Amino acid sequence: MALFLDQQFAPLPDTNEIATKTFLESVSHLPHFFDCLGSKVFAPIKADINGNITKIKAVYDSDPVKYETLQQILLIEKSIYGSEWPKVGATLALMWLKRGLRFIQILLQSLVDGERDEDNPDLIRINITKAYEQALKRYHGWIVQKVFKAAQYAAPCRSDFLKALSKDQEVAEEECLTKVRQFLINFTATVDAVYEMYSVMNAELDYLV
Amino acid sequence: MALFLDQQFAPLPDTNEIATKTFLESVSHLPHFFDCLGSKVFAPIKADINGNITKIKAVYDSDPVKYETLQQILLIEKSIYGSEWPKVGATLALMWLKRGLRFIQILLQSLVDGERDEDNPDLIRINITKAYEQALKRYHGWIVQKVFKAAQYAAPCRSDFLKALSKDQEVAEEECLTKVRQFLINFTATVDAVYEMYSVMNAELDYLV
Ligand SMILES: CCCCCCCCCCCCC/C=C/[C@@H](O)[C@H](CO[C@@H]1O[C@H](CO)[C@H](O)[C@H](OS(=O)(=O)O)[C@H]1O)NC(=O)CCCCCCCCCCC
Ligand SMILES: CCCCCCCCCCCCC/C=C/[C@@H](O)[C@H](CO[C@@H]1O[C@H](CO)[C@H](O)[C@H](OS(=O)(=O)O)[C@H]1O)NC(=O)CCCCCCCCCCC
Repeated sequence: MALFLDQQFAPLPDTNEIATKTFLESVSHLPHFFDCLGSKVFAPIKADINGNITKIKAVYDSDPVKYETLQQILLIEKSIYGSEWPKVGATLALMWLKRGLRFIQILLQSLVDGERDEDNPDLIRINITKAYEQALKRYHGWIVQKVFKAAQYAAPCRSDFLKALSKDQEVAEEECLTKVRQFLINFTATVDAVYEMYSVMNAELDYLV
Repeated sequence: MALFLDQQFAPLPDTNEIATKTFLESVSHLPHFFDCLGSKVFAPIKADINGNITKIKAVYDSDPVKYETLQQILLIEKSIYGSEWPKVGATLALMWLKRGLRFIQILLQSLVDGERDEDNPDLIRINITKAYEQALKRYHGWIVQKVFKAAQYAAPCRSDFLKALSKDQEVAEEECLTKVRQFLINFTATVDAVYEMYSVMNAELDYLV
């Protein structure tokens, strides 16, 4: 079945500490999500998320022991960078990456919850808009918001999107949705834990791009 | 003075043949043009143009003698790729690159010609729109056109743009415009020659993205 749906995120330990290596391995499949949207218009988004992952990976690779968990990355960068932090390094990359992950999570959750525009039951615009409003809109200035408004028309219809998630195999829609639900369990827990960490560490920023 | 304005394009020989090496060296400075627009919104455009240049350079580097001129690249690729051509290889990359170059050329020409929106004399939106309409619009589907409409609001005002072209040095506006006029001579001739070559070789396509 689906490329990225098959790459389940690891369950969180009781401590909610996230192992950097496992996390990087899991998120490395997520940029394919934007291929499922099926338009080149989304290439810049994929590139931005890939950039975040590359940046976090570079920090991890520089010292895998020191940066074993995401928590350690934030703590160490905070001590290294002083007042520049948190708008710097892997801390900044993960700050933005988590927003992209939240967007994906809310969009998928909204789909499995069956939220639909009754007038356009085969469009996913309503699900995309919900995800955008909750995950990203408040960090975007009016120009990027306008770009989003235009770009959302490039989104595929619901059935094509579900097919793409299932890698175009002829699986029944219900089977695909079951896979998505399964995927969302550890994925949502991980995204929640990253958000929680930014809140506890006081590492969240709300400047606009 | 300006980074890319100082990198004059070479004059064309009487044959209008364009040496690949010299061309690649000259265009390599052009992506900085989009930095002069001063907003991260234009990063995807810069990336697209950089991609074109990288692709042409890879073909050239694979055999600098065989691919000595741009004309040779098109001729050889036509014979290699058969019916796939011209939507393939360096021929495709240069097809799109030349449209970006035309955009830059028309925008700069319109500025030095003093074309202004009388109601908003310090905006360059009128010049950007002219360049877009003549160089790119017909190759863009309605969604990308809508994205353009939104993105143009991120353009700087005229005085800031001219300052950026002059690398923020305190040069008089007239001095900067003189530099632009000088730059445009060989640049325009080169862009014209590339268009002419696509027309003669019947290599132009008008599919939409
Ligand atoms: C012909 C005319 C063409 C005109 C061209 C116009 C192009 C318009 C540009 C669109 C923007 C593309 C999206 C990227 C937006 C990015 O600007 C933001 C902030 O990006 C962050 O910025 C930081 C510095 O502030 C660091 O550089 C981060 O980098 S660092 O790693 O170096 O630290 C970087 O990720 N990321 C974001 O907003 C994240 C976006 C996630 C998107 C999630 C899905 C949305 C789906 C929408 C579906 C409809
Ligand atoms: C949070 C929500 C975010 C939503 C994200 C939305 C992002 C919107 C995306 C915007 C598009 C960015 C511009 C890129 C457009 C590109 O699609 C086109 C065709 O690009 C070509 O395509 C070919 C295949 O068909 C090959 O891949 C070429 O690649 S190849 O080398 O492999 O052969 C490639 O260049 N290039 C273009 O249209 C060229 C553009 C030049 C631009 C010139 C200046 C315009 C200035 C405008 C100033 C206002």
